[in-house]
Amino acid sequence: MIGERVTLDELPLREDLRGRSPYGAPQLEVPVRLNTNENPFPPPAELVAEVTAAAEDAATRLHRYPDRDARVLRAGLADYLAGATGVHLGAENVWAANGSNEILQQILQAFGGPGRSALGFEPSYSMHPIISAGTRTDWVPAPRRPDFTLDAPAAARLIAERRPDVVFVTSPNNPTGQSSSLTDIREILRAAPGLVVVDEAYAEFGSGSSAIELLGEFPAKLIVSRTMSKAFAFAGGRLGYLAAAPAVVDALQLVRLPYHLSVLTQAAATAALRHAEATLGSVATLAAERDRVIESLRGLGFAPVPSDANFVLFGQFSDAAESWQAYVDRGVLIRNVGIDGHLRVTIGLPNENDAFLEASKEVPR
Amino acid sequence: MIGERVTLDELPLREDLRGRSPYGAPQLEVPVRLNTNENPFPPPAELVAEVTAAAEDAATRLHRYPDRDARVLRAGLADYLAGATGVHLGAENVWAANGSNEILQQILQAFGGPGRSALGFEPSYSMHPIISAGTRTDWVPAPRRPDFTLDAPAAARLIAERRPDVVFVTSPNNPTGQSSSLTDIREILRAAPGLVVVDEAYAEFGSGSSAIELLGEFPAKLIVSRTMSKAFAFAGGRLGYLAAAPAVVDALQLVRLPYHLSVLTQAAATAALRHAEATLGSVATLAAERDRVIESLRGLGFAPVPSDANFVLFGQFSDAAESWQAYVDRGVLIRNVGIDGHLRVTIGLPNENDAFLEASKEVPR
Repeated sequence: MIGERVTLDELPLREDLRGRSPYGAPQLEVPVRLNTNENPFPPPAELVAEVTAAAEDAATRLHRYPDRDARVLRAGLADYLAGATGVHLGAENVWAANGSNEILQQILQAFGGPGRSALGFEPSYSMHPIISAGTRTDWVPAPRRPDFTLDAPAAARLIAERRPDVVFVTSPNNPTGQSSSLTDIREILRAAPGLVVVDEAYAEFGSGSSAIELLGEFPAKLIVSRTMSKAFAFAGGRLGYLAAAPAVVDALQLVRLPYHLSVLTQAAATAALRHAEATLGSVATLAAERDRVIESLRGLGFAPVPSDANFVLFGQFSDAAESWQAYVDRGVLIRNVGIDGHLRVTIGLPNENDAFLEASKEVPR
Repeated sequence: MIGERVTLDELPLREDLRGRSPYGAPQLEVPVRLNTNENPFPPPAELVAEVTAAAEDAATRLHRYPDRDARVLRAGLADYLAGATGVHLGAENVWAANGSNEILQQILQAFGGPGRSALGFEPSYSMHPIISAGTRTDWVPAPRRPDFTLDAPAAARLIAERRPDVVFVTSPNNPTGQSSSLTDIREILRAAPGLVVVDEAYAEFGSGSSAIELLGEFPAKLIVSRTMSKAFAFAGGRLGYLAAAPAVVDALQLVRLPYHLSVLTQAAATAALRHAEATLGSVATLAAERDRVIESLRGLGFAPVPSDANFVLFGQFSDAAESWQAYVDRGVLIRNVGIDGHLRVTIGLPNENDAFLEASKEVPR
């Protein structure tokens, strides 16, 4: 094979990338995979048929560039969010990209970058600092309370002192699971000198209100990001989106790569949205399973963190890495998210959760 | 609608983005669209059926994240390139993304960025400087000869003097049409202190050799980028790719967003590759039409630039913007690429080219 003797060290890689490893959970072939917060319910036959019909129609136009502005899809997303929150949103309030990671990257390309900073409350979604680094935005790590909840007054004081250009609030927070109240988010919005991005990737699994309800109050400050990867069971389709003032969408169109969303992505996501009610029916099942898993873990003497999402962070392990491997050895892949003494399990199908709970009885603590 | 009164000026946009407009050719509803270098032949029924079958299979896995490393697709792309060039390429030599724009962005995220520079020979593909700006890479514009060909000795001297981290060579060049010889590209590779990206988006339309043949000689310096948007008639599917040493692919995995390629994109592109021979059959037809258009334009007293691509740059207009509008008024959308006295026409179906040539008799010069 050509060029196989060249090493990474010989290439003129940026210095800040040297020695790094690519992001991503280990993808292992084990019977029970509860590591990436996917929705475990496969698409029902009706959805497969709808996506297939949409793909067949889109395939006849593959030789032409897609609608650069994805207007039909954005209107569908706006309808969904308006129905879920009661907030009057139109297509102009919504932007979409290949996963919420691309949404976040575009936000930092437009509003972050060299000489600017982004602040987030750790532990949280690890892509926030990674995408900040990728866009050369300084990352300001801020703490959560020892129980992983957000201390809004302390957060507001730190924001006032550090004056970050962008603040990330993940709610429900990944990998810990708790939501932040609108009261807390409002306090952060009041303190922030720039933008606040509320990352609501797991919103549908919670019972709280969406920060979208605050858009009318903070239209020049607030961006709410969402994804179809989780509740919508569309992780493979790669569709992230956001709600914000139309001017924010205008700003992102200055940095987006033209034609970033394929005809297939636009067609398939639109089809999946038409099927939203049925797909989101799985959310109640998963929430009930989550509560069962939490209760069972408590019964086994673990300390699970309360969760509004489709995963549970739990401890206490004396060596989380060793215990993670013990789960793998029992055919159960969960996630070591780097929080001392803790592991995170995604809520799967009932029999997968049973397998996880059985393994939990045996792994070293 | 929420937030509609907020203006872009009120947002904390980066200063270098203020006053800019989003990139993109005007998308107008006119009978004959010859403005974005698409392949005008719609996917044949067999390809639509193959893509649909691939999408149906992929749709059953939509709830799961895609293969982060797109191994099957990359192996297919490597096979195609190896067959076309005779160079021994494996999947490890190939990387893929949502259009070649994302490929180029990843290259500059890994090897460009703040404090680094990229050089290109203008006029050329306008996304090179735009993606450089988006990644905060300094852009160094370099000239071509008055006839738009590349002056390799002058280029080598300028590269030795300016020492850019990345050099772009577009071959065939967009929007002018000519290819650069491997001798010229080798001269540039010898002079370059960093990477040379040969952008071969239109390679299949030319009769020359691919820079992929130089990979064995310059494995630590050369990246050849390609796209399925043009000859493969897959603009709507969004699939760009590159060939390089495996270490280059390793470097890009440090900056790519995880799971950037959806299951649908991977499946549809793999299906389209299986259909490559039939699709690429249109290339000869388009090349013959291109030569007919060039000859006809000459007959009408225009000065078309020689082209190895599926478009033709031609002049001379006293006011290119006015003449562009005159084409639109006659139902023919071509492209004003900002080159004084010139317009660019994409080669379409024979009847579309006829309509363009008829309009050419009437428009003001």
